[in-house]
Amino acid sequence: MSQSLTSAAGSAASDRVTLIEYFHAVRAQTEALTRGLSPEDQVIQSMEDASPSKWHLAHTTWFFEQFILTGCARGYDCFHPDFAYLFNSYYEGAGPRHARPRRGMVTRPDLAQVMAYRAHVTAALTDFLQAAEESVLTAVAPLIELGLNHEQQHQELILTDILHAFSCNPTKPAYGPYRPAATVEPAPLDWIAFEGGIHEVGHAGGHEGFAFDNEGPRHEVLLRPFRLATRAVTAAEWLDFMADHGYRRPEFWLSDGWATVQREGWQAPGYWEQRDGGWHSMTLAGLRPLEPEAPVCHVSFYEADAFARWAGKRLPSEAEWEVAAPALSPHGNSCGSGLLRPMPATPGEGLRQMFGDVWEWTQSPYGPYPGFVPPAGTVGEYNGKFMCNQMVLRGGSCVTPDGHVRATYRNFFYPHQRWQFTGLRLAEDA
Amino acid sequence: MSQSLTSAAGSAASDRVTLIEYFHAVRAQTEALTRGLSPEDQVIQSMEDASPSKWHLAHTTWFFEQFILTGCARGYDCFHPDFAYLFNSYYEGAGPRHARPRRGMVTRPDLAQVMAYRAHVTAALTDFLQAAEESVLTAVAPLIELGLNHEQQHQELILTDILHAFSCNPTKPAYGPYRPAATVEPAPLDWIAFEGGIHEVGHAGGHEGFAFDNEGPRHEVLLRPFRLATRAVTAAEWLDFMADHGYRRPEFWLSDGWATVQREGWQAPGYWEQRDGGWHSMTLAGLRPLEPEAPVCHVSFYEADAFARWAGKRLPSEAEWEVAAPALSPHGNSCGSGLLRPMPATPGEGLRQMFGDVWEWTQSPYGPYPGFVPPAGTVGEYNGKFMCNQMVLRGGSCVTPDGHVRATYRNFFYPHQRWQFTGLRLAEDA
Amino acid sequence: MSQSLTSAAGSAASDRVTLIEYFHAVRAQTEALTRGLSPEDQVIQSMEDASPSKWHLAHTTWFFEQFILTGCARGYDCFHPDFAYLFNSYYEGAGPRHARPRRGMVTRPDLAQVMAYRAHVTAALTDFLQAAEESVLTAVAPLIELGLNHEQQHQELILTDILHAFSCNPTKPAYGPYRPAATVEPAPLDWIAFEGGIHEVGHAGGHEGFAFDNEGPRHEVLLRPFRLATRAVTAAEWLDFMADHGYRRPEFWLSDGWATVQREGWQAPGYWEQRDGGWHSMTLAGLRPLEPEAPVCHVSFYEADAFARWAGKRLPSEAEWEVAAPALSPHGNSCGSGLLRPMPATPGEGLRQMFGDVWEWTQSPYGPYPGFVPPAGTVGEYNGKFMCNQMVLRGGSCVTPDGHVRATYRNFFYPHQRWQFTGLRLAEDA
Amino acid sequence: MSQSLTSAAGSAASDRVTLIEYFHAVRAQTEALTRGLSPEDQVIQSMEDASPSKWHLAHTTWFFEQFILTGCARGYDCFHPDFAYLFNSYYEGAGPRHARPRRGMVTRPDLAQVMAYRAHVTAALTDFLQAAEESVLTAVAPLIELGLNHEQQHQELILTDILHAFSCNPTKPAYGPYRPAATVEPAPLDWIAFEGGIHEVGHAGGHEGFAFDNEGPRHEVLLRPFRLATRAVTAAEWLDFMADHGYRRPEFWLSDGWATVQREGWQAPGYWEQRDGGWHSMTLAGLRPLEPEAPVCHVSFYEADAFARWAGKRLPSEAEWEVAAPALSPHGNSCGSGLLRPMPATPGEGLRQMFGDVWEWTQSPYGPYPGFVPPAGTVGEYNGKFMCNQMVLRGGSCVTPDGHVRATYRNFFYPHQRWQFTGLRLAEDA
Repeated sequence: MSQSLTSAAGSAASDRVTLIEYFHAVRAQTEALTRGLSPEDQVIQSMEDASPSKWHLAHTTWFFEQFILTGCARGYDCFHPDFAYLFNSYYEGAGPRHARPRRGMVTRPDLAQVMAYRAHVTAALTDFLQAAEESVLTAVAPLIELGLNHEQQHQELILTDILHAFSCNPTKPAYGPYRPAATVEPAPLDWIAFEGGIHEVGHAGGHEGFAFDNEGPRHEVLLRPFRLATRAVTAAEWLDFMADHGYRRPEFWLSDGWATVQREGWQAPGYWEQRDGGWHSMTLAGLRPLEPEAPVCHVSFYEADAFARWAGKRLPSEAEWEVAAPALSPHGNSCGSGLLRPMPATPGEGLRQMFGDVWEWTQSPYGPYPGFVPPAGTVGEYNGKFMCNQMVLRGGSCVTPDGHVRATYRNFFYPHQRWQFTGLRLAEDA
Repeated sequence: MSQSLTSAAGSAASDRVTLIEYFHAVRAQTEALTRGLSPEDQVIQSMEDASPSKWHLAHTTWFFEQFILTGCARGYDCFHPDFAYLFNSYYEGAGPRHARPRRGMVTRPDLAQVMAYRAHVTAALTDFLQAAEESVLTAVAPLIELGLNHEQQHQELILTDILHAFSCNPTKPAYGPYRPAATVEPAPLDWIAFEGGIHEVGHAGGHEGFAFDNEGPRHEVLLRPFRLATRAVTAAEWLDFMADHGYRRPEFWLSDGWATVQREGWQAPGYWEQRDGGWHSMTLAGLRPLEPEAPVCHVSFYEADAFARWAGKRLPSEAEWEVAAPALSPHGNSCGSGLLRPMPATPGEGLRQMFGDVWEWTQSPYGPYPGFVPPAGTVGEYNGKFMCNQMVLRGGSCVTPDGHVRATYRNFFYPHQRWQFTGLRLAEDA
Repeated sequence: MSQSLTSAAGSAASDRVTLIEYFHAVRAQTEALTRGLSPEDQVIQSMEDASPSKWHLAHTTWFFEQFILTGCARGYDCFHPDFAYLFNSYYEGAGPRHARPRRGMVTRPDLAQVMAYRAHVTAALTDFLQAAEESVLTAVAPLIELGLNHEQQHQELILTDILHAFSCNPTKPAYGPYRPAATVEPAPLDWIAFEGGIHEVGHAGGHEGFAFDNEGPRHEVLLRPFRLATRAVTAAEWLDFMADHGYRRPEFWLSDGWATVQREGWQAPGYWEQRDGGWHSMTLAGLRPLEPEAPVCHVSFYEADAFARWAGKRLPSEAEWEVAAPALSPHGNSCGSGLLRPMPATPGEGLRQMFGDVWEWTQSPYGPYPGFVPPAGTVGEYNGKFMCNQMVLRGGSCVTPDGHVRATYRNFFYPHQRWQFTGLRLAEDA
Repeated sequence: MSQSLTSAAGSAASDRVTLIEYFHAVRAQTEALTRGLSPEDQVIQSMEDASPSKWHLAHTTWFFEQFILTGCARGYDCFHPDFAYLFNSYYEGAGPRHARPRRGMVTRPDLAQVMAYRAHVTAALTDFLQAAEESVLTAVAPLIELGLNHEQQHQELILTDILHAFSCNPTKPAYGPYRPAATVEPAPLDWIAFEGGIHEVGHAGGHEGFAFDNEGPRHEVLLRPFRLATRAVTAAEWLDFMADHGYRRPEFWLSDGWATVQREGWQAPGYWEQRDGGWHSMTLAGLRPLEPEAPVCHVSFYEADAFARWAGKRLPSEAEWEVAAPALSPHGNSCGSGLLRPMPATPGEGLRQMFGDVWEWTQSPYGPYPGFVPPAGTVGEYNGKFMCNQMVLRGGSCVTPDGHVRATYRNFFYPHQRWQFTGLRLAEDA
């Protein structure tokens, strides 16, 4: 499912060392993220869409065991026969598995055992990589890289899911301390124009570095001239939408969106609540007063779409977004900053916040690119079977691991979901 | 919402006559379709997706009353003050309305009163059209044409919904008699190739005749070379899929589709059941033995997509379908044939069954074309607000009114729905 | 299931005539009740607890066909082979049947066919009774009487269920005209004391006339001294309860009742709604202003129990009610009065409204009397299998057929149900 | 709510010491029960009916804080202001509280904090009791005793709920080791006859020791002669019921029970599953082969009732059970034995297993005894508001604390519930 891998240049020996170091770095980063969480924090499942931290720790480990060690590493000693059943996520091809909504029932193995499982697999894979013949290494390296990018996705989910879990606790606990940021002037909203015509989008494959299978094949698209907003929509702008009764005026909403608003009683973005007369938001630093100049976050596609219609604009298509993005550095306010919340746009000109801060909803339903074929075997279930009913998001968020996203990266969620760090950027026809 | 209307040629007077005749013909056709149904048949609502026949009769009448008579016909005497509440479907802009799932509770007004309502509105609109000044007529003609096309859509729904209602009756009643068709040789499946490149799709607007708003604007799309199957997938081919355990092998299914198969216990298309050792299907002529060479019908998008993957093919995109279609006559086995079921493909060469027989699922999510803007006012709710979560179907079916569809026509349903006359045609990359 | 039957006295020939006349009278009464309803009114099922009028007409007919004609009448020609499946209610022993929540799907057979079914069975049973040998007549008479009492229960349900159906129609249609009643002075609430000790309750069997199986065996109960209110609780008294925030104060409610109030959002009895600043109630004469001195109606057991606790009283047990009742005539404001709504208590002394007006909730869970054994065979399912989770009501209502109830009669519903004509009478320890 | 208290005899000083020792013993016993559970085991909530162990530890502590320390102990320093909200169970009168189905979301406070809360309250109450004036002590002693009996009820729930939680884990963990028991000969089923007439049942109040409010007032009941089986129904006998298609024959079942069997797909008691061709049961020692001579356990009222009907018997009433029980020692195979599962009846004559092993379903709906009035104030919610829709069970189980039950003790659950240690004993009319 990865169109690519590690590199072309460099000696084989240094490649091997790089791969092992990369592997250790990602594994260590996952463990660092859960260090402040108690065993109790890590076992519960606060809703069907979310998973326990402990499950994320184990599942990312099972991925290496299932797709590499079991198949490729001769003499590998499976850590525990039950774990494949417990920690397979959705791979029908890998056999039966524990029901997703019941992940929070697995108090045993306990956290210590799962950490031992991690250590066992990390060590076994290290041994295997150190000893592997060159040809084996070449063959297996793409799967390693896939496993590491997979683990980074779960790093983001660990933070996303624990925020949801803590939001369900009336005491509103904090994952970490609040770190103030420099006060900024509100950044005015500007527009950048892009030309129409035939553009290429999608990932070109191996020599360009890693990508998930759903990012390719690279292909031509026909666009019409368009403009993108220079920054994401802010919380202050969202308050304007609310003040204009945005949640009570059906004319802005898709029919399914309006039904969701009624059914769920939505009156504000996810995690927002009023306390002492002012809006607050549940964050990884606990319940905090709203930061008006920061991007609005935890809005569903339905809300993003309604806001855009209220504003007389629209959401960009994923191709428009991708055409606009590559000139920018894929870094931004992502997990590495330690802020763990979206930050106001920096002053200046040009597109800002394309990477980091909030995942940006596009108007594009998630589907296969022309010529897309999932890889053979069970890893072919990674992305392809979800290509229905979901919408594409682009650009990563404040909880995405540094370096994980790129211009071609396609994330996807259902239009009603809002527990992810999701916001929006406006677009319009030129 | 209509990009167009009636015509350019002809004197104003003959246009007026034509419009009135057209209006009467469509109204009469609706009434003809319900003539064989008892008052009881016409009052029940067999599921939330379906509506009572009586409601269809009244709602299509309300449409003319709400959008033309109330606004444009001075001195129009509203038939009954409650009917706007009872028979508005989903127009938020037209005020509050009876809840959709409760449509089957309206035993009063009874059928006779609803027929009187129809007669009242038909007469009032006829009077209005006869007396209208030329400029008023020109202004209102597009809305009349919209109302008539709207009524034709409900003609198809009357047949579709009564089939569902009768399928819920253990005695499996028939809407009409079974009409045998000439036995045909199975038509072999062939492929027709189409060129890639930039094509134009969508409706060009007024001078080309009526179209719904969602068919435009006409715009360019970039396609890759592709091939379309010459006919729809047959019931016999579907039995092969079932014999190969198609409903039990997750590798063919989208994730949401597989979940639906499990939850609903699907093992065959909608309305199929086994009796006396053979497959039968509920039809408008009652429960009948399967006709193997006829197109498979009442399959969901999920099933169509899984079948295509099992067959090593894919569904066409809506643009591909549209590029292939226009050379053909939009007539086919549609409602006017009186057969009211999909028929085997005729022998011969070239694309067959593009229009009529079964609506063909495409791989395209239903969304706005570039530059799409719904018309101002309440009629703007006609199509635009449904542009999410649904898939496009093309070509009409055996219960579509003759002349109602065209190459640019876009129908849309949720991917799990299968009470419509829905089938599929395979495609592949060239 | 009937402990008894027809009579002891009288010649055999006159008994036969009496039985046939009784049979015709009850059958005719059922048909009279549905005469003003359209075929559409009679086909729909407005909720799972209710049934279509047409179904009641057919089911009561099936009862005679199933339990008498099929088994006892040689050469009986079954009217239609599907009807047993369609119109069996809940008799597992009588074979498979149409699902209860789907009764509203049966548009065919239509009303005319069901009336023909009625005529067919009425005639066949008449012929059978006229020709039967004396010994056969004696054997079958108890089943006839059961069937007629059964049909009377469905007469009450026809009125009860059509009220619910009409309440679901926003136009609030009337089953019949409103008949004003003489204005009465509010009857003051008084108390009648009864002695404790061992009393006999329950039906003694055959020589005392018909009773359902669940009314026996007659047995001794030990009571403590108690007092009963002289009349039912009125709507005006219920308004006091509401004014004292009765629906918002958990201290009055059983835990399950309080959960129901929250879940259903109850703020008043069933069918009550505010219009133009005053309380109205949906009745068989349409939506009418509340009659404050009439008994409160359409309250659940939970509400009745909460009201009693608010009033510092309690509900009577069924034994207390029965001990108090027999001196009274079982007639009252029942169906025969044609008023079809509960009426204010007449002035005077002593217990009033014990029979008729509203079914009175008791504090007694519905269970078997000591020594109760259901009759052998399928009719044994009549009452016994419902002896769990329901509460006993006594005394009949304004829609109960005249002469149908008696002091030992036990009706039963779930504590949350309120579509029946249910009210309450207070009790207290002496 | 307790009709009684501690004792009459003894000096005041020794009473004070006794009370403090009793208090410490119960508190320590609760903590001993959870010692083998990890923090993860103690935080999850496996279904709405069950609660996390940590919640039980905290709630029993809150009970003393809420009902004694806050009200009576001057200068008591509340441990944490959030805990009343988090750990109130269902006392509307004690203010708002965390939603029951969300108890498993409270990862913080963590287990260590809850244990500190326990220590804080235990110490504060000890100080208070040591220092209290005699009159205060007398006044407060009944509440202490109530709190300790309340805590014992939660001791049983800790074991009951953790069994359910572990049953949801595919690895089927054990709470403790399996302790084999001496092999016994199957005890034949015998019958003991009891006389009818007027008996006294219910608790007589204070001088007889502690009882819950729902056990009184003591009152007369009128019974008919009856017989009780000498032992509980065994698993082997239940296998006979299953072999005779007991779960597939509606004639044995109450209507609501049969609907539950269909909906839930029940084919065996709770926690039973087939492995390697033989029946096993989930126990506190993990998944174990069935012990055929032990009482069947984890059956619902519906199943118990159906079994009795299949066997040609019935369930006893609670009065019958109570009349039979008092001659026996209330000890039996209860929690103190450490076996934590029901054991086969010992050989011999007379009633066995009346106390301990399994809670025995009776045919009696749970309701108030004549003259029952709940105590004033918030503790009045302890039992009274649940007197609807539940059935009475008697005698305690293998996980009931030693000495907790007595002949008058009334437990109650909904008829479909089966996660408790519930079985049955047969009865019949004499």
